[in-house]
Amino acid sequence: MRKICAVVSSRANYSSIKSVLRSVSQNKNLILQIVVGASALIDRFGSAVDLIKKDGFKINNRVHMLIEGETVETMAKSTGMGLLEFPTVFRHLKPDIVLIVGDRFENMAASIAASYMNIPIAHTMGGEVSGTIDESIRHAITKFSHIHFPASKSAKERIIKLGERKENVFLVGCPRIDLAKKVLSDKKSILNEKFLNAGVGDKINFSKPFIIVSQHSVTTEYNDTRHQIESTMKAVNKINIQKIILWPNPDAGSDEISRVFRKFREKNLISNVRFYKNFPPEVYMKLMSKTSCLVGNSSSGIREGAYIGTPVVNIGTRQSNRDRGKNTLDCSYNENDIFKSVNKQIKKNKYKKEYLYGDGSSGKKIAKILEKVKVKIQKQISY
Amino acid sequence: MRKICAVVSSRANYSSIKSVLRSVSQNKNLILQIVVGASALIDRFGSAVDLIKKDGFKINNRVHMLIEGETVETMAKSTGMGLLEFPTVFRHLKPDIVLIVGDRFENMAASIAASYMNIPIAHTMGGEVSGTIDESIRHAITKFSHIHFPASKSAKERIIKLGERKENVFLVGCPRIDLAKKVLSDKKSILNEKFLNAGVGDKINFSKPFIIVSQHSVTTEYNDTRHQIESTMKAVNKINIQKIILWPNPDAGSDEISRVFRKFREKNLISNVRFYKNFPPEVYMKLMSKTSCLVGNSSSGIREGAYIGTPVVNIGTRQSNRDRGKNTLDCSYNENDIFKSVNKQIKKNKYKKEYLYGDGSSGKKIAKILEKVKVKIQKQISY
Amino acid sequence: MRKICAVVSSRANYSSIKSVLRSVSQNKNLILQIVVGASALIDRFGSAVDLIKKDGFKINNRVHMLIEGETVETMAKSTGMGLLEFPTVFRHLKPDIVLIVGDRFENMAASIAASYMNIPIAHTMGGEVSGTIDESIRHAITKFSHIHFPASKSAKERIIKLGERKENVFLVGCPRIDLAKKVLSDKKSILNEKFLNAGVGDKINFSKPFIIVSQHSVTTEYNDTRHQIESTMKAVNKINIQKIILWPNPDAGSDEISRVFRKFREKNLISNVRFYKNFPPEVYMKLMSKTSCLVGNSSSGIREGAYIGTPVVNIGTRQSNRDRGKNTLDCSYNENDIFKSVNKQIKKNKYKKEYLYGDGSSGKKIAKILEKVKVKIQKQISY
Amino acid sequence: MRKICAVVSSRANYSSIKSVLRSVSQNKNLILQIVVGASALIDRFGSAVDLIKKDGFKINNRVHMLIEGETVETMAKSTGMGLLEFPTVFRHLKPDIVLIVGDRFENMAASIAASYMNIPIAHTMGGEVSGTIDESIRHAITKFSHIHFPASKSAKERIIKLGERKENVFLVGCPRIDLAKKVLSDKKSILNEKFLNAGVGDKINFSKPFIIVSQHSVTTEYNDTRHQIESTMKAVNKINIQKIILWPNPDAGSDEISRVFRKFREKNLISNVRFYKNFPPEVYMKLMSKTSCLVGNSSSGIREGAYIGTPVVNIGTRQSNRDRGKNTLDCSYNENDIFKSVNKQIKKNKYKKEYLYGDGSSGKKIAKILEKVKVKIQKQISY
Repeated sequence: MRKICAVVSSRANYSSIKSVLRSVSQNKNLILQIVVGASALIDRFGSAVDLIKKDGFKINNRVHMLIEGETVETMAKSTGMGLLEFPTVFRHLKPDIVLIVGDRFENMAASIAASYMNIPIAHTMGGEVSGTIDESIRHAITKFSHIHFPASKSAKERIIKLGERKENVFLVGCPRIDLAKKVLSDKKSILNEKFLNAGVGDKINFSKPFIIVSQHSVTTEYNDTRHQIESTMKAVNKINIQKIILWPNPDAGSDEISRVFRKFREKNLISNVRFYKNFPPEVYMKLMSKTSCLVGNSSSGIREGAYIGTPVVNIGTRQSNRDRGKNTLDCSYNENDIFKSVNKQIKKNKYKKEYLYGDGSSGKKIAKILEKVKVKIQKQISY
Repeated sequence: MRKICAVVSSRANYSSIKSVLRSVSQNKNLILQIVVGASALIDRFGSAVDLIKKDGFKINNRVHMLIEGETVETMAKSTGMGLLEFPTVFRHLKPDIVLIVGDRFENMAASIAASYMNIPIAHTMGGEVSGTIDESIRHAITKFSHIHFPASKSAKERIIKLGERKENVFLVGCPRIDLAKKVLSDKKSILNEKFLNAGVGDKINFSKPFIIVSQHSVTTEYNDTRHQIESTMKAVNKINIQKIILWPNPDAGSDEISRVFRKFREKNLISNVRFYKNFPPEVYMKLMSKTSCLVGNSSSGIREGAYIGTPVVNIGTRQSNRDRGKNTLDCSYNENDIFKSVNKQIKKNKYKKEYLYGDGSSGKKIAKILEKVKVKIQKQISY
Repeated sequence: MRKICAVVSSRANYSSIKSVLRSVSQNKNLILQIVVGASALIDRFGSAVDLIKKDGFKINNRVHMLIEGETVETMAKSTGMGLLEFPTVFRHLKPDIVLIVGDRFENMAASIAASYMNIPIAHTMGGEVSGTIDESIRHAITKFSHIHFPASKSAKERIIKLGERKENVFLVGCPRIDLAKKVLSDKKSILNEKFLNAGVGDKINFSKPFIIVSQHSVTTEYNDTRHQIESTMKAVNKINIQKIILWPNPDAGSDEISRVFRKFREKNLISNVRFYKNFPPEVYMKLMSKTSCLVGNSSSGIREGAYIGTPVVNIGTRQSNRDRGKNTLDCSYNENDIFKSVNKQIKKNKYKKEYLYGDGSSGKKIAKILEKVKVKIQKQISY
Repeated sequence: MRKICAVVSSRANYSSIKSVLRSVSQNKNLILQIVVGASALIDRFGSAVDLIKKDGFKINNRVHMLIEGETVETMAKSTGMGLLEFPTVFRHLKPDIVLIVGDRFENMAASIAASYMNIPIAHTMGGEVSGTIDESIRHAITKFSHIHFPASKSAKERIIKLGERKENVFLVGCPRIDLAKKVLSDKKSILNEKFLNAGVGDKINFSKPFIIVSQHSVTTEYNDTRHQIESTMKAVNKINIQKIILWPNPDAGSDEISRVFRKFREKNLISNVRFYKNFPPEVYMKLMSKTSCLVGNSSSGIREGAYIGTPVVNIGTRQSNRDRGKNTLDCSYNENDIFKSVNKQIKKNKYKKEYLYGDGSSGKKIAKILEKVKVKIQKQISY
């Protein structure tokens, strides 16, 4: 029986791995271990840990590692805290494989800890391209990982080009698509009052049009954060439509974004708006299937957005060059540009479904591979 | 004036960067900053910091980051300590470029800290191939670095294959060769009593034949460390020649090596031997030019060894697939194999000089490039 | 010239030391160094650091040390982070004396760091009595401190009973009284719009009656935190008066308090209320001189409250047995008890001024003593 | 069933708590948990952890917390590391009471962690007097502790004077005396070859006279460390007697002591000498009963030395004012003074047994009290 230890360190991580957790937990040859860390534990970031428990998963350990401040310096130190904590956790849990999601800075810590401790790493969502520091982190995690689960064909090819051996690279699609598929096929409304009233601000009428704003800081443009988010806020405020705004992730600069949100809210600089810390993954995807437009720089618009057909306005560099479908309209940080782009997308109805990031069966595929894959702990570049 | 902040975190690091430090400090458009960390500060690892000061360099800051224990777990946590310390250092020094050497675990911390803080990284000795965890660390550092200074042609090509942009990759050769060249051309004997008497054990007569043993733990074969080093010790003990043995680096497993050294020494299981913690880089290279054979798994045998023509017996996987010259004879961890290989090399006289790792001008080249190179903080893979 | 390094690690710390900072900075034989750390750097705790800069002080260094979570475990780990950071700071600043305020957990870190590094500690507000973990921290800091600046006569006696030598114990009064005195004598209104509109909630009319609620978690009653704060919220909500509510300090349990505040606010379970993160010290004291009642468990009601004559309802054990004046009415955590006590105090007009905690000249006294006091680094208990 | 979690963080700690561990483990109403940390895990400090296991105890968790360097700064940071580690350990073990020994810096971390986490602390060896930073640490730990087990009558009185409540202070004697008693009554020789040959240097003939040197750095006299230890080395070298020298604890300054030891040894500046890292507690006490003189500043000479009647020369301030018997002769750091004092003591035969630190039943007493003692988590000073 192999022990698979999944590290979940943000609300986005949970959406990206939930279907895998489900499949691993149902596999008779695998034992699932879950370590929840970083912002996934923190109330003001939406306590993803509560959703995980509500979904019936057992939490094996918790890693408090975020150092308050949300500067580039605390981002590095938080990674350091993670590196002090994860080794203890792995010593206790003795996993056979550690499962790492994507490209966030918190996951760098778990990756280094596992690989230094000679525990094989399986990595999802590697091989993609983007902006911000995540671009470097993603490829560095690939260089520490032993098994790769890319979400798209081009990502698979990129991982192999990066010198990883073909036999360790498995094109499985993106596990977020698994959830999207399930949500789209589910007739039962999951948009219940409880989740939708959780935020603060105006009451949203979900039978009327609304847009979603989800914009994170770009750490490599740290000093422009305030200006970037203000442009977006001003642009969407000019549009007469209901707005759902999501609080940002805990990157360097996110404090700046929160400050701008609070300023706009407290000084009534924006109207017809409600702010949310978090949604359960399925609720979020349901909203993506109903929204007139998703605005910002979240990768969700590009991933499951393409599958769902959500009209997306993608602002700035955070997702630069990530594989995208027709549903995504790129635009600059310029207020006017954003305003025009969102209006254009709102007028569009939904886009046609695209299968760039898989067909919704990725969790099962990953579990099956984890069951049997052979791993050699000493890596070596293929060229 | 650009501030170039070099991180020196082991005695080996210092040999690998000394000629660059010299050239940067002599360049009128560059300001040299030196941060000394990890084992370079510690007496039982030879206090490289004292050599650096003796060589006339100013130390700008010190980073104590090694957590005692030398297990795979403390190796990870020491990296975590580094990640808590380097951000503070970089905030104070405000470097324009951070200069990172090679592939050791301590340097992973400085690399993550700098890149998260949007400080460009220049990396020497990237793109090479080896065994142990260093293989993963080296390529991960490449993915965080903005300017690359590979030491060999194949390393340069590998870095470009890894998706780094050609215009940021500069083939400069290995700065260790700069030192080797200087030492070889220097008629003045630097083998003075002071350094040679520093160790413990029998007195070595340097006008008679001697071998050098320098073997480090392979973290990915952590549990075999004791057996591996015992084989080597037994093998060299059978050879009737003077032996210089170097204490190991602080990797996971090095405590095991030290224990074996102490056991052999205290129980007189080895004779005709002297143990050293450290040599000044030039003294070490002088010894390499005089030794009958360098035994173990240090990369120095492969790098400057090829240039000097030192007969080398390279044991096990630590250097697997690193570009090597004719001077290097590979062998397994088997005692008999080691015994035969060393005897074979001892009979050889010196090998012919090879230029695999440059011609001894790499420090100057690096300083010149650092002066003018343009850097974009946001990286993106080239394919 | 002696370098006096003051550590300010919360908004409350700043109020408690501001007059000392002023006096030290004006003293020609002293050089003031200020290190700002912990919640004093964090936006959601009111960024005391901004006030300090606005007041014209230079910040010498910043210590990010709070690990997100606000559990008893993260409180301990945050102290650990402080112990990793303060030694670096003290190495850089090389103070002759470190000045520590009061009894908060963040200051434990600075105290241990300084004393281990043989830097003499001067400690204000020692020798007092209270509940919560602060009671232990306060006396432990006394045992690490070399110079004591108690705020009251009984505190002075207690410090001496604790085995500190008389010649190192100086009764100077509480520096918070210095500010209170200045504020009371200042005719100019400082209650300007900017500060008063900073919070969120209903607009407060400061010419009409209002109460202030400031209640922190008691870490030794960690599991009762939610219940305790809900009682208070329900009790004050029954009273038809304007309410100013302050967000709590970052103790274990304060996240719970914040959650209750948000719940009451978002579900409209409380009315006629405005929430504030922080006030400049003088604004806060001005409000204390105008409020109908200060409710909760802040020591400010007991200290400067006695001097100002503020009617105070002190709830629960946090201040148990701290020297108090007639202005303070103690009550239990019981909702009804709180309701009755607040009503009783509201009916009272202001109380008569009391001088329990000094007469408002403590900053000057402290600076003068710091100038000349002789310190022996090796402490030894007096009995 | 109460879970008693003992923290053992040095070889000295183990001697001081071993009899308590035995009694707790034999008590049917108590569950013993052992956490081994700091130097007790480290080979070059004698790996007390191996002795603990050999004695049949189960190790529940390990805390690597020493940051290499042994400066005053790393001593503070090592405490910080401990504060990052112990909370995790206590969360996992959920002890009812944490048992803390004495006054070393490593134990400060465990004390703060436990008390912040509302876990009652039982403290042995509190209330005594000494020099070095231990003096402050000891009393600070008392202020965090809930149950006190002083070793002497004067210590008991001091703890009560420190404001601890009488009902929580139990005079039990020093658990080291338990071991001494057992060793003295044991006819069987435990001075077997294995332990006695463990060190390096000349072979000691234990049937002939020998002295023991055990001298640690005084952190508050950090800069004098080298001079202090050199005086001792020179003084004892003048005496024609076999010498057993113990490597120092990992305090700030101990690296300096080690350097002096190595220098004396490698340059043959001392003869007739053997260096040891550690002895099992019983072997050490046996040696104390046979030695002609114990020289240095270890508290063992003063504690069990008084019971055993060992002639002791106590150098300098480290033990200043600790209760001592007639067996202890104090002297300064002056070489001549040391020389004369040691000679004087060597001429003495053994001293008469004294019972200052109890009669050898302290482990049993402590276990019995731990079984039933009532603890209130909120402390408050008694005056």
